Amino acid sequence: MSFPKGIRRALASLASYQLTRRTSRRHMQYLMIGIGFATTASVSFVQMEAAKKRKLNISLYMAEPITDANTLLNNEEDMRTKMELMIMKVQAEFCQALEAEEYAGQKFKVDRWLRTEGGGGITCVLQDGEVFEKAGVNISVVTGMLPPGAVQQMRTRGKKLAEGKKLPFFAAGISAVIHPRNPHVPTIHFNYRYFEVESDGEKQWWFGGGTDLTPYYLNEEDAIHFHKTLKDACDEHDIGYYPRFKKWCDDYFRITHRKESRGIGGIFFDDIDTPSQEEAFKFVTSCAKSVIPSYLPLVRQHKNDDYGDNERQWQLLRRGRYVEFNLIYDRGTKFGLYTPGARYESILMSLPLNARWEYMHTVRPNSKEGKLLEVLQNPKDWVSTA
Amino acid sequence: MSFPKGIRRALASLASYQLTRRTSRRHMQYLMIGIGFATTASVSFVQMEAAKKRKLNISLYMAEPITDANTLLNNEEDMRTKMELMIMKVQAEFCQALEAEEYAGQKFKVDRWLRTEGGGGITCVLQDGEVFEKAGVNISVVTGMLPPGAVQQMRTRGKKLAEGKKLPFFAAGISAVIHPRNPHVPTIHFNYRYFEVESDGEKQWWFGGGTDLTPYYLNEEDAIHFHKTLKDACDEHDIGYYPRFKKWCDDYFRITHRKESRGIGGIFFDDIDTPSQEEAFKFVTSCAKSVIPSYLPLVRQHKNDDYGDNERQWQLLRRGRYVEFNLIYDRGTKFGLYTPGARYESILMSLPLNARWEYMHTVRPNSKEGKLLEVLQNPKDWVSTA
Repeated sequence: MSFPKGIRRALASLASYQLTRRTSRRHMQYLMIGIGFATTASVSFVQMEAAKKRKLNISLYMAEPITDANTLLNNEEDMRTKMELMIMKVQAEFCQALEAEEYAGQKFKVDRWLRTEGGGGITCVLQDGEVFEKAGVNISVVTGMLPPGAVQQMRTRGKKLAEGKKLPFFAAGISAVIHPRNPHVPTIHFNYRYFEVESDGEKQWWFGGGTDLTPYYLNEEDAIHFHKTLKDACDEHDIGYYPRFKKWCDDYFRITHRKESRGIGGIFFDDIDTPSQEEAFKFVTSCAKSVIPSYLPLVRQHKNDDYGDNERQWQLLRRGRYVEFNLIYDRGTKFGLYTPGARYESILMSLPLNARWEYMHTVRPNSKEGKLLEVLQNPKDWVSTA
Repeated sequence: MSFPKGIRRALASLASYQLTRRTSRRHMQYLMIGIGFATTASVSFVQMEAAKKRKLNISLYMAEPITDANTLLNNEEDMRTKMELMIMKVQAEFCQALEAEEYAGQKFKVDRWLRTEGGGGITCVLQDGEVFEKAGVNISVVTGMLPPGAVQQMRTRGKKLAEGKKLPFFAAGISAVIHPRNPHVPTIHFNYRYFEVESDGEKQWWFGGGTDLTPYYLNEEDAIHFHKTLKDACDEHDIGYYPRFKKWCDDYFRITHRKESRGIGGIFFDDIDTPSQEEAFKFVTSCAKSVIPSYLPLVRQHKNDDYGDNERQWQLLRRGRYVEFNLIYDRGTKFGLYTPGARYESILMSLPLNARWEYMHTVRPNSKEGKLLEVLQNPKDWVSTA
């Protein structure tokens, strides 16, 4: 990168600036050295002044960020900022990709909400579309005090946190569940999140997340494509990740009382704080960016497949199982709903538009439905990890 | 009752005997005195021999009892026996009353099941009827060892039980949820149960239960009739019961995250062990027997009411809320599903055949739907307790 270009960019940024270009601080340093008159204090002042005049390119996102734009611009190297802008971008790209699959211009309804305790979120839902029966993509960026019960739960997971008192926390995450109309298009869920908690003046942080697929009919090629895409995203960072997080996913999304999995898995992880904050962030970013290539090809390929009432009824029954998992076992849903002041509409957007429960429903072992059940009862490996 | 009639009955009972007539032991005493040769020991022998030849009138029930008929006949004064026969009878009467409302002879499917840990149940489900979309009436009579976690939970409720070890228990109960097809007919739920647990050689016992109504449209007359019938059943035993158990019901069936009740309440209680075992049993029996008169008139009056797609969609949304309560908050459902080896089909028969979740659904305040919501948000008193 040439020096004058750096200066030109930095100056141009006074008028219009996209925070997602993470080279900006370096440009500022070039500017400082080039002009040669700035002290650290005055640079900081110059940065702040510049930030006030810069603007986030809101058109990249579904709504204005939750955190004040100036705070973001003044803390662009802070992981809170990076995470908020990353999930905002992933949300917008994913929503736009889904909207592009609809035929009659159905769009996401966008709700930006704030919570009195601190922070808020942007909930995007497309309901009753031709291709998507219900699609919800939510981001939230929240701060507040963690109740002692939640602290205790984290202590059992090995976090070094003071016992028996409320602790300040920050959490930013994206969460999405897409229920298509055609039973030959699977449901997808993903969630990526960053967490900070402060105890005795020390900050602890970690990332968590995952992507998993819930087909109504098993298409082995789709399953392999989906898992392969996630594996590639993991392998870029650590070849140990995919096998470990694939198993974690199989273990987590289990409808224990039915002895079956919710779907055919994917990846799932929590408490990631190695090898460094930056590397962990890059890993989570890769995972989030792999959602579209893992899923959209399946939508395009099957959204016009033929199906009849039998397939629709089976899809509705499986959606009942999805509800069972989410309301009985999912930690995120339970944690959310038990949190006073939680925006339950954003938590429960994961539930399908329609679901069904039949007493003692059975499937024939060699039917298409039976073949899916077989895989749900005995999760299998879709890509070789040798 | 005349003396010879007593003898005649007692002798007749050797051929055919209905245990539900709780006068039988008295007849035996008359027989003893009348014949004048029996000692206490020989009476006991005579009873046992007689019992072997007697038969339970199985035609009164939906299936054979869970407990062996001879065990029941030999322990007819034991509360376990009384409770099992009472819930079997209530189950059969209720199922028959519901079947009588159907037009095309739809019948309950009857599944009698045993669990390896001890005991079992009879699950009756009528699915896809013309009048009842899904109706489940289950009894269970189970024995086994209570895990330390469950013991601990009971200790917090004041039971004097040894800490940190498994304890032998017995439980017998009836549980039913009826989801009618017509949105003008409410859903009803009831559950009556008897529990025994042994610790340090001492047996503790108690009763629990309740009946509650979940209308889709508010009909004040129906609400009053329903509550009045329950109140009458309570008042027979203790005029303090209805106000106390009505409030308990309002507090229990609360969908906390939505700040609304599941329905318009009824009665709910637990840990009833006064004034005596016999009196407590009579109270629970009165409650169970009040289900038909509290509910069937509502079915008959509204099962042919006109309704359109709007009403059906609203009913499906409210059924989604029903699922939320049962899977997130209901203690019985959670306790059941987390119990290894539980028959989940019998637990989840409470879920509706169809349910729906719309993101950010709203109702107009003065609409019929709004009027129901108003009452769900602010539970009211339906009968005067002054």
